[in-house]
Amino acid sequence: MKIAIAQQNYHIGHFEANFGKINAAIEAAKAQQADIVVFSELAVCGYPPRDFLEFSDFINRCQAVIEKIKAISQGIAVVVGAPTVNPVIEGKDLFNSAYFIADGEVLHIAHKALLPTYDIFDEYRYFEPASEFKVVEYKGKRIALTICEDIWNIGNENPLYKICPMDELVKQQPDFMLNLSASPFSYDHAVNRLHVIKANTDRYKVPVFYVNNVGAQTEVIFDGGSIVMNGDGQLIEELPYFEEAIHYYDLDAVNNPAPADIKGEQAKDKIDLMYRALIVGIRDYFGKLGFTKAILGLSGGIDSALVMALAADALGAENVRAILMPSEFSSDHSVNDAVKLAKNLGSPYDIIPINKAYDAFNETLKPQFEGTTFNVTEENIQARSRGLILMALSNKFGYILLNTSNKSEMAVGYGTLYGDMCGGLSVIGDVYKVEAYALSRYINRNGEIIPENIITKAPSAELRPNQKDSDSLPDYDELDKVLYHYIEERKGPKELIEMGLRETLVHRVLRLVNMNEYKRYQTAPVLRVSSKAFGMGRRMPIVGKYLS
Amino acid sequence: MKIAIAQQNYHIGHFEANFGKINAAIEAAKAQQADIVVFSELAVCGYPPRDFLEFSDFINRCQAVIEKIKAISQGIAVVVGAPTVNPVIEGKDLFNSAYFIADGEVLHIAHKALLPTYDIFDEYRYFEPASEFKVVEYKGKRIALTICEDIWNIGNENPLYKICPMDELVKQQPDFMLNLSASPFSYDHAVNRLHVIKANTDRYKVPVFYVNNVGAQTEVIFDGGSIVMNGDGQLIEELPYFEEAIHYYDLDAVNNPAPADIKGEQAKDKIDLMYRALIVGIRDYFGKLGFTKAILGLSGGIDSALVMALAADALGAENVRAILMPSEFSSDHSVNDAVKLAKNLGSPYDIIPINKAYDAFNETLKPQFEGTTFNVTEENIQARSRGLILMALSNKFGYILLNTSNKSEMAVGYGTLYGDMCGGLSVIGDVYKVEAYALSRYINRNGEIIPENIITKAPSAELRPNQKDSDSLPDYDELDKVLYHYIEERKGPKELIEMGLRETLVHRVLRLVNMNEYKRYQTAPVLRVSSKAFGMGRRMPIVGKYLS
Repeated sequence: MKIAIAQQNYHIGHFEANFGKINAAIEAAKAQQADIVVFSELAVCGYPPRDFLEFSDFINRCQAVIEKIKAISQGIAVVVGAPTVNPVIEGKDLFNSAYFIADGEVLHIAHKALLPTYDIFDEYRYFEPASEFKVVEYKGKRIALTICEDIWNIGNENPLYKICPMDELVKQQPDFMLNLSASPFSYDHAVNRLHVIKANTDRYKVPVFYVNNVGAQTEVIFDGGSIVMNGDGQLIEELPYFEEAIHYYDLDAVNNPAPADIKGEQAKDKIDLMYRALIVGIRDYFGKLGFTKAILGLSGGIDSALVMALAADALGAENVRAILMPSEFSSDHSVNDAVKLAKNLGSPYDIIPINKAYDAFNETLKPQFEGTTFNVTEENIQARSRGLILMALSNKFGYILLNTSNKSEMAVGYGTLYGDMCGGLSVIGDVYKVEAYALSRYINRNGEIIPENIITKAPSAELRPNQKDSDSLPDYDELDKVLYHYIEERKGPKELIEMGLRETLVHRVLRLVNMNEYKRYQTAPVLRVSSKAFGMGRRMPIVGKYLS
Repeated sequence: MKIAIAQQNYHIGHFEANFGKINAAIEAAKAQQADIVVFSELAVCGYPPRDFLEFSDFINRCQAVIEKIKAISQGIAVVVGAPTVNPVIEGKDLFNSAYFIADGEVLHIAHKALLPTYDIFDEYRYFEPASEFKVVEYKGKRIALTICEDIWNIGNENPLYKICPMDELVKQQPDFMLNLSASPFSYDHAVNRLHVIKANTDRYKVPVFYVNNVGAQTEVIFDGGSIVMNGDGQLIEELPYFEEAIHYYDLDAVNNPAPADIKGEQAKDKIDLMYRALIVGIRDYFGKLGFTKAILGLSGGIDSALVMALAADALGAENVRAILMPSEFSSDHSVNDAVKLAKNLGSPYDIIPINKAYDAFNETLKPQFEGTTFNVTEENIQARSRGLILMALSNKFGYILLNTSNKSEMAVGYGTLYGDMCGGLSVIGDVYKVEAYALSRYINRNGEIIPENIITKAPSAELRPNQKDSDSLPDYDELDKVLYHYIEERKGPKELIEMGLRETLVHRVLRLVNMNEYKRYQTAPVLRVSSKAFGMGRRMPIVGKYLS
């Protein structure tokens, strides 16, 4: 039996495009005489469709795609993810399902039992969990169908669910398991994924064909990395990251592989993976919204330099326009460094001083500001004048403005709402400052793109004379450590202090994080590369009084 | 047996303040010789605590409050909501629980079984559902404890859950039921709530003491309206809306009420309820964040006029500062009408023309804009210059800026990101334009506060000569009808057209709504007054291609 795995990049709600991709893969699989072609979770509508699922019109359109797939399934079995309507009155209205279609008929529909409802996931918002489990028979083989999370509940110290679908399915003696996934990237996810597949083959002793989604949907990035592993726990192949691919496997060769059948796994360097994820995140945000060109403010600092280099790699350097907006507080090296970066990349740039706008606001507000002194207000006027100029260029010429705030700044609120926090997409809002340095060095791995001076100089917002980040923030190494353990690890103040972090620092940082929830609420979507990004995966009350 | 109901306004994570309120109510109940005092769902930490629940430190602090409550429970039973740790390894780590504490001991802990996970609710994100149900015995009475949603699954055509906790509890022959709720306001919720309580007493024939939360937590508003109904379905009392209250009931008098025991229900006028909800929403947002003063841009149009009148009622007119920012496109009547409103209210106001800022940006961007013509870019520069001025005043003097966008505008993207969409709180982002008119007339019910001319003139953004909203938008009556059925009722295009709405209008409006998701993503929290508000209760993909 020949099995095809189709690792594809769908577009939420774009039924024509998604069917086009599925159709092309079915044609290719037929040409290769495959018996079965397997697609990923909710392939017909893209994942996560979120509240579109509450529209019966949306569900009907998903069903219309299933009908079209049935019509082209002559001579091949197609396994594809789609939402289905729960026929029982009690419970949620939908299931998250896997269709098994062959020769124009639906032979089986399996429903997902374990519905992730944590971090970015809201599946129990929409779906009823499966309560029945049945293998499907096809061409003399018994096949267990599972969907993503269904196989993630084993081998954990603290399992999230009370059941394991495969514990039921294995009683029906399946010959192999197909898993349809939409399992998002984080820089440590690929390792976990391999462990989970291995835990399944160890326990159930059947081959697993794990088919993941690839590409980005707003903030959520899928890395692909689909997996074929046999019942002895031998990794046959891990498919490429961040690319579409259709690969074919002979079941006998999977069960008893010759050395040449074993393709092995992909390299897993954290910074390389983050880089590639961010490139896909930018590219798909623009591509799926129908935009080609980006604009950003280039300050001469490391964050905007990194975002520009990433955007140039994602969109083409000629499609990224840098705007340098010096003020009276800008140092010469800032402009020079920024110009050098734009020239290194070969991207267009403009120098647009903000002094006229800044003066006009100071003049306009003179009667109201009489008797007050320069403070954060005037700093914010500069940042917001820059934001306004960038948005004006964006509106006039059809750019998407890229936000350049990093995760450390966003965490402690070191940024101006409607100023440097403007933008349609936050590229590095899930990248701590120390990781921004590592990514910049990675970008320079084959020669200088980001000028060395940008990487080595002390960070400064340059909003008042001789300002340095270190005037108002702790050292980034120390800050990022507190932030990581608080945000990613959810440690409280007591645990952080017990880890050896300074008590005054811990209290100050946690207070800043919680006080600034209102700023993050209004931030652009953040490309998610860690296990806990700001945005839909981290939901905090603004009026909360905890640790603030 | 004497039962006290404590309808209180908690502050999420503010354990000292919450315990202070609970303590005061226990003292009061003891003074009244009550046998039991009942508080609302998750009273110790406030509802909804959201991802604070993922911090074990947060859970420990909740438990510390329970310990303090135990210490003051001599001679009285206290029933209070708090999260508890699930001792079973499998499943979610927490339960949403009701403690029954008396004389320093925990006599029983009941867990919530039905976990709302839709709209603004994320309970299955955190909590494991109860699987065991037991009445608690106290002073010879058998008491069924339920939590909010637990009693909402009966009498529905399409029940969300497969079980009914009271179906189990009633087998143990309870004498009455206590329900601890945190059930948010929407303008049609109070009617539904009474129906649900009635459906419960009809089915189970036992008295229900339903204790709701009151007050606002960021966008979510609780109206109180706690209910006492006897086993014959007689409404004994519906507690006041939007106020804290402790009321006392003798169980015998509830079971066999004299005419004087029957206090009946509150009036339920939609616009009056919306008005009162918005007042509480503003007041608690400011109060819980520790702010007293608001600022807003007053354009002379109805939306900002309505927001200003609401803010004046919520915070005191002297604490609301209006900024009039005319441009060359502003009409005389706009400034005159706005001044008149500020004078009617007795609020401070400034007139700050934006021409200097507008000219400075046009001058600054001249090289880049060479050869282009006036379009939405220049309109946005005006809106953003206003936003910048308002934020500068907010930063300098410690105001919270109120956003004045209505739901119709927000839906179709008729507003400028970082311009008129600025603000810490969206006051009327869940109020359709036609409802904004009704609210304005309500505010004028005892005499003119909002000048009549503001209510009767044709709406205009005044961002280009002689502009009217009707130049770019359909008539608001028609627009709001499409929006309501699409947003609140989740009808698709086919259903909307079948309702008799114009086909071209339907397609245009749905496309505008979906195309502008990116703007709403960056909007301030919206006070929720309908059953489907923008924000945490409506989760849409930005890159979605559905109907756009």
